[in-house]
Amino acid sequence: MYLGDEAWPDLETYFEEESLALVPTGSTEQHGPHLPEATDHLIAEAFAREAAERTGYLCTPTINVGVSGHHRQFHGTMWVDPPAFREYVESLTRNLTEHGIDRVIYVNAHGGNVPHLREVGARLRQDETAFAIEWMWNESIPDLVDELFEQNGPHGGPKETAMIQHLRSELVHDDRLEEARDGGIPSVDAAGTVKHGSRTFYDAADNTENGVLGDQTDATAEKGEEMFEAASDQLVELCEWVAAREFEELLPEPHV
Amino acid sequence: MYLGDEAWPDLETYFEEESLALVPTGSTEQHGPHLPEATDHLIAEAFAREAAERTGYLCTPTINVGVSGHHRQFHGTMWVDPPAFREYVESLTRNLTEHGIDRVIYVNAHGGNVPHLREVGARLRQDETAFAIEWMWNESIPDLVDELFEQNGPHGGPKETAMIQHLRSELVHDDRLEEARDGGIPSVDAAGTVKHGSRTFYDAADNTENGVLGDQTDATAEKGEEMFEAASDQLVELCEWVAAREFEELLPEPHV
Amino acid sequence: MYLGDEAWPDLETYFEEESLALVPTGSTEQHGPHLPEATDHLIAEAFAREAAERTGYLCTPTINVGVSGHHRQFHGTMWVDPPAFREYVESLTRNLTEHGIDRVIYVNAHGGNVPHLREVGARLRQDETAFAIEWMWNESIPDLVDELFEQNGPHGGPKETAMIQHLRSELVHDDRLEEARDGGIPSVDAAGTVKHGSRTFYDAADNTENGVLGDQTDATAEKGEEMFEAASDQLVELCEWVAAREFEELLPEPHV
Amino acid sequence: MYLGDEAWPDLETYFEEESLALVPTGSTEQHGPHLPEATDHLIAEAFAREAAERTGYLCTPTINVGVSGHHRQFHGTMWVDPPAFREYVESLTRNLTEHGIDRVIYVNAHGGNVPHLREVGARLRQDETAFAIEWMWNESIPDLVDELFEQNGPHGGPKETAMIQHLRSELVHDDRLEEARDGGIPSVDAAGTVKHGSRTFYDAADNTENGVLGDQTDATAEKGEEMFEAASDQLVELCEWVAAREFEELLPEPHV
Amino acid sequence: MYLGDEAWPDLETYFEEESLALVPTGSTEQHGPHLPEATDHLIAEAFAREAAERTGYLCTPTINVGVSGHHRQFHGTMWVDPPAFREYVESLTRNLTEHGIDRVIYVNAHGGNVPHLREVGARLRQDETAFAIEWMWNESIPDLVDELFEQNGPHGGPKETAMIQHLRSELVHDDRLEEARDGGIPSVDAAGTVKHGSRTFYDAADNTENGVLGDQTDATAEKGEEMFEAASDQLVELCEWVAAREFEELLPEPHV
Amino acid sequence: MYLGDEAWPDLETYFEEESLALVPTGSTEQHGPHLPEATDHLIAEAFAREAAERTGYLCTPTINVGVSGHHRQFHGTMWVDPPAFREYVESLTRNLTEHGIDRVIYVNAHGGNVPHLREVGARLRQDETAFAIEWMWNESIPDLVDELFEQNGPHGGPKETAMIQHLRSELVHDDRLEEARDGGIPSVDAAGTVKHGSRTFYDAADNTENGVLGDQTDATAEKGEEMFEAASDQLVELCEWVAAREFEELLPEPHV
Repeated sequence: MYLGDEAWPDLETYFEEESLALVPTGSTEQHGPHLPEATDHLIAEAFAREAAERTGYLCTPTINVGVSGHHRQFHGTMWVDPPAFREYVESLTRNLTEHGIDRVIYVNAHGGNVPHLREVGARLRQDETAFAIEWMWNESIPDLVDELFEQNGPHGGPKETAMIQHLRSELVHDDRLEEARDGGIPSVDAAGTVKHGSRTFYDAADNTENGVLGDQTDATAEKGEEMFEAASDQLVELCEWVAAREFEELLPEPHV
Repeated sequence: MYLGDEAWPDLETYFEEESLALVPTGSTEQHGPHLPEATDHLIAEAFAREAAERTGYLCTPTINVGVSGHHRQFHGTMWVDPPAFREYVESLTRNLTEHGIDRVIYVNAHGGNVPHLREVGARLRQDETAFAIEWMWNESIPDLVDELFEQNGPHGGPKETAMIQHLRSELVHDDRLEEARDGGIPSVDAAGTVKHGSRTFYDAADNTENGVLGDQTDATAEKGEEMFEAASDQLVELCEWVAAREFEELLPEPHV
Repeated sequence: MYLGDEAWPDLETYFEEESLALVPTGSTEQHGPHLPEATDHLIAEAFAREAAERTGYLCTPTINVGVSGHHRQFHGTMWVDPPAFREYVESLTRNLTEHGIDRVIYVNAHGGNVPHLREVGARLRQDETAFAIEWMWNESIPDLVDELFEQNGPHGGPKETAMIQHLRSELVHDDRLEEARDGGIPSVDAAGTVKHGSRTFYDAADNTENGVLGDQTDATAEKGEEMFEAASDQLVELCEWVAAREFEELLPEPHV
Repeated sequence: MYLGDEAWPDLETYFEEESLALVPTGSTEQHGPHLPEATDHLIAEAFAREAAERTGYLCTPTINVGVSGHHRQFHGTMWVDPPAFREYVESLTRNLTEHGIDRVIYVNAHGGNVPHLREVGARLRQDETAFAIEWMWNESIPDLVDELFEQNGPHGGPKETAMIQHLRSELVHDDRLEEARDGGIPSVDAAGTVKHGSRTFYDAADNTENGVLGDQTDATAEKGEEMFEAASDQLVELCEWVAAREFEELLPEPHV
Repeated sequence: MYLGDEAWPDLETYFEEESLALVPTGSTEQHGPHLPEATDHLIAEAFAREAAERTGYLCTPTINVGVSGHHRQFHGTMWVDPPAFREYVESLTRNLTEHGIDRVIYVNAHGGNVPHLREVGARLRQDETAFAIEWMWNESIPDLVDELFEQNGPHGGPKETAMIQHLRSELVHDDRLEEARDGGIPSVDAAGTVKHGSRTFYDAADNTENGVLGDQTDATAEKGEEMFEAASDQLVELCEWVAAREFEELLPEPHV
Repeated sequence: MYLGDEAWPDLETYFEEESLALVPTGSTEQHGPHLPEATDHLIAEAFAREAAERTGYLCTPTINVGVSGHHRQFHGTMWVDPPAFREYVESLTRNLTEHGIDRVIYVNAHGGNVPHLREVGARLRQDETAFAIEWMWNESIPDLVDELFEQNGPHGGPKETAMIQHLRSELVHDDRLEEARDGGIPSVDAAGTVKHGSRTFYDAADNTENGVLGDQTDATAEKGEEMFEAASDQLVELCEWVAAREFEELLPEPHV
């Protein structure tokens, strides 16, 4: 069920019976010469809508702009600073609970959002407002991703390329995949910016000229579809697991 | 041009030549028994995309959740508290300026966002970061709106109904228009909650049972289209006016 | 009863019997070549004291400096930034409740304070701390104001001029009323700064050379007195209305 | 010169020639059974106005409510929390500098405000916005105060009693001076709440039943007048000293 | 008992039986040419550890960097701004209460921390989280300090010199005591920076060339030891006094 | 060079010649039944001091309490909330730059601090205040750690056990190593709390009964020494690398 499409009286039954919401969180940021800036929020939204459709759980509209300051050097990257992101997500989630929601899955497709969603989630759980956790599709199918690609990226690599080829093929510049690969680097290691155990970089631009990693020519829409199906299965199972718990089970352990 | 669809190298020319961005700001909140909760962000996005298409100026992805705490009593209303909204919008706008943007039009379709967009805009202008102003479609065509409807609403009234009938007719419950009218009130005055010059209400629920105002049966998709065209014309002209100014012209007046 | 004049033991009975306080909120800002910078806080204080005297309800000392950044270009305008104002008023109001006050009328005479008083009031009501509402004298007698003046201003216009002529005539430069009119503009519309439905101005100085609007020559102390009496009546009635309610009646509606 | 009384064009010359402002800061809080809650802000305002009158320097309207949470147990005490006070004063002072003010004397009559005014002043000086310092009348004439009274208080004692007898005798309950003395304590030491070098109290109510200290029967309007004259002389000299400095002289020392 | 040395199961009994913790708070800042920058946190830690050892109460690790911006002109001074200090101490203290601690003594050795510890302590007591008070060793033995030294300082004077001579003699440059005295000033009064009752200085560098006050040649390790013993006795007695109270006794008085 | 031991004049040369500081950041938190709560800050301090001694670079006092809320269920864990930690570290670092420091290595021994140190570091670099990076000893010698232990932990495992056996053997309960192992879990995977790619846990207590992971019986002081030497070498090299750069080299890349 997609909250945005519904009139308020039609949501009453849902809130009486269920207390789970899926909140898609993405970013709008450079994804190399071949992928659209919307990549992450398109992926987040697609997974959240798919899982909502399959399960009947509620999906909300998407948070399209996240914590992407580390891509600032590339045209068009949009971002909010970490405190603004945390405050926005926390406020949005707290307010959702006024309708009876007490568990949230942030269907997230941007790594830069993760520590902030975790920080917010920890606070909401600690004060017993809600059990809110973050899920990223690729974390749910690590073996399949490794099997499909030699160098999967992460950022703007074949994994994300294949996913957009599947979801919105018209937005992929297929004729730039080689350029994407040749202008980027295979992986963060290749940049040599981890020195003696310390990350000496903060921005994507410290590591790569065109903003991306991995071998994009390895991507196909078929691989994208296979991953989408597999990860959607995982998200569906996560939804069922979260929904099946008593709220008390999801709260922090007591002091020893 | 829609930022979300573009790969970063394809935005370079725009940022070299132009410095205007359209940022759609809406809400996700109850709009009565007949309209979807997405109403305001759908409208904001439609206008911003239309103007961007007609003019070539840049449109960003939409901020879907705004300041709607005053609709909290109705199922599904989502909101962030005012400080979170202001911080999110301000951070997002400041960061846009790193690409050369120095003027922003918030294409806004939710009244509850207005004072906050004004507060943010005043700050950004005062410190000479950007000239950011807020535009609402209905404010740009007051005469036409008055001409088309006896009681235009505002919230969830025939004006917004007609607009969604035009933009996303499948999301309107046309069979509930009478119910919408009969369960609501003609206008805020009818609620009698302004006492001796003071607004004694804070929430929509203080004034109306079903969350809406006006006579929704007066709405048609044709009226929606007429308003959409007329207001889009206005937005296009505003874009041209803003874009044609020197940045200095847009800054605050000097001290007398 | 004026709180500032009382010794603490003499307030005990009041707090046992009543729970309403009037808090005057004004500004210190330019009001044209003819009116004193204190205009707004003088008016706020006069109304609050008058109503307190007539009814016996408690009036507190005045907040003399408010949100007036939009008058910054004119000598002597004082202001605090919106977050500072909100935090100050909210803290002051919350703390008043420790004595048993649970309802507050901000007797306000400065339009720039309104959205901030509303934001604070909404928060205080939502968490059931207090029912705090804002009242402006001119909003309570719109018909009389319209009847008395052709062009009432608003800022620094004949309406406010007449009020200060009545309250503190020695502070009005009667010999500058024509200058005030001729150096200003009749109304905001005359400035032409609303473009295609968007306010492209933020400051008074964007619209007017001398900071004021309307025809000041139309003002007399008699008109001021008439308005003062009429609006004081309204405020008294508002006090009685607010005081007569059960606290529960003043709280937010429950979720539908 | 009192800012509140002036129309903006009449302030132009001042700001061209001078850069000092006196800002009265007080409190509204219990001062025992015999003194009005306004005591501190009345005193602050009286000194600031007097010095402004004698010297021609600019005096602004008064901040009537300060940091008085430690008097919360007594009816009618008003206060804002420390962060709100600091933010309000800092914002007000920063904004004053837009007219050319670069030095401010907080004419303060409430001890509870002192650390906060010092914190704000340190910040403003460090970033070279303004040189803002705090002055309390009794600190300027310690010998005279000691000479006039055996037990001067401080809070609500004979020192403050005499001052209000001089400034606003109608607000003093002269018939309660003995009651004030007998229901209070001679000095903080008498409360015995400093234990082994640590202040174990936070509130006035931890130390005294009626909120005051010292022997109020020792107060007379004549003593008040004497102190008022003497301390006003001091304030005038401070004004002249501050005004005579180059701004650079008032800024922080360079790093060694 | 020192918390840092213990494994968690070994703390269980303590938290079952006791609810007091000693938290050492110091600074890292210039203390003249003869004393180490660690002076204040070394002293704070020594007293807290000593009292914990003598009494069995719990001592936590030390907060080594405090509010020392007023020493910024001297090499090596470290500091955090006041809001950061307050937030850090308040958060740390609140979180301690999750183990059953409800009373805290900040064993403090830096005057610059005092108003901030008091502000935090007042908040924690007011919301009934904990009774947290600040103790400084020299405040507990004023007569002895006066007896031992003609000019005790305060900052970097003979009092602190003697203490470090006792605690960490290898860190004192005994050959620079005369230089310390001659390059500094006897007391704040000598600087002449209190003008007409107002402190016109903010930084140590406004008053003294080498950062210290008093006659350091008057210091000996024996005097240090004597003071250490005497003040430790006081701290032990304070611990016992605080521990012996019912929590309710330590909370704010009710409203009159 | 250890800042805390020095008198201010003795630091002058350092600040003239060098601009690097090592800031140890740790935590005070449960480390199982066998290790002291000080574990992380002892390790951080030991490495920072060692590297400072070997290279001559400056080491500051330690931040002893960090972000450890996820260990709150175990007696004695101390922590500050993430915003307090970030603000404290950021303020401390900014202020260090007033002496000429423009690069900082946070010698960190607590994983929970990492995202916050990275957030602060990113901000400081972005506004060109300082280049501040975080280093953790185990990240610098991953191969050696893997070679020495089958199951290295991480938290409270053999890796940290061996390190404290080397640094402060008297604080290790060697007789509880089996208990530590048997009461904990081999690794986070064993807890089964990552569900379908999502971490459903927030606290250590969600995963383990006694708070630790790995096989502690595998630890020896010799292994600790070997790791200490190897990681110290890495830190020394990192210091040299950081110190050898021009400041401009360390700043963000320009916009493409």
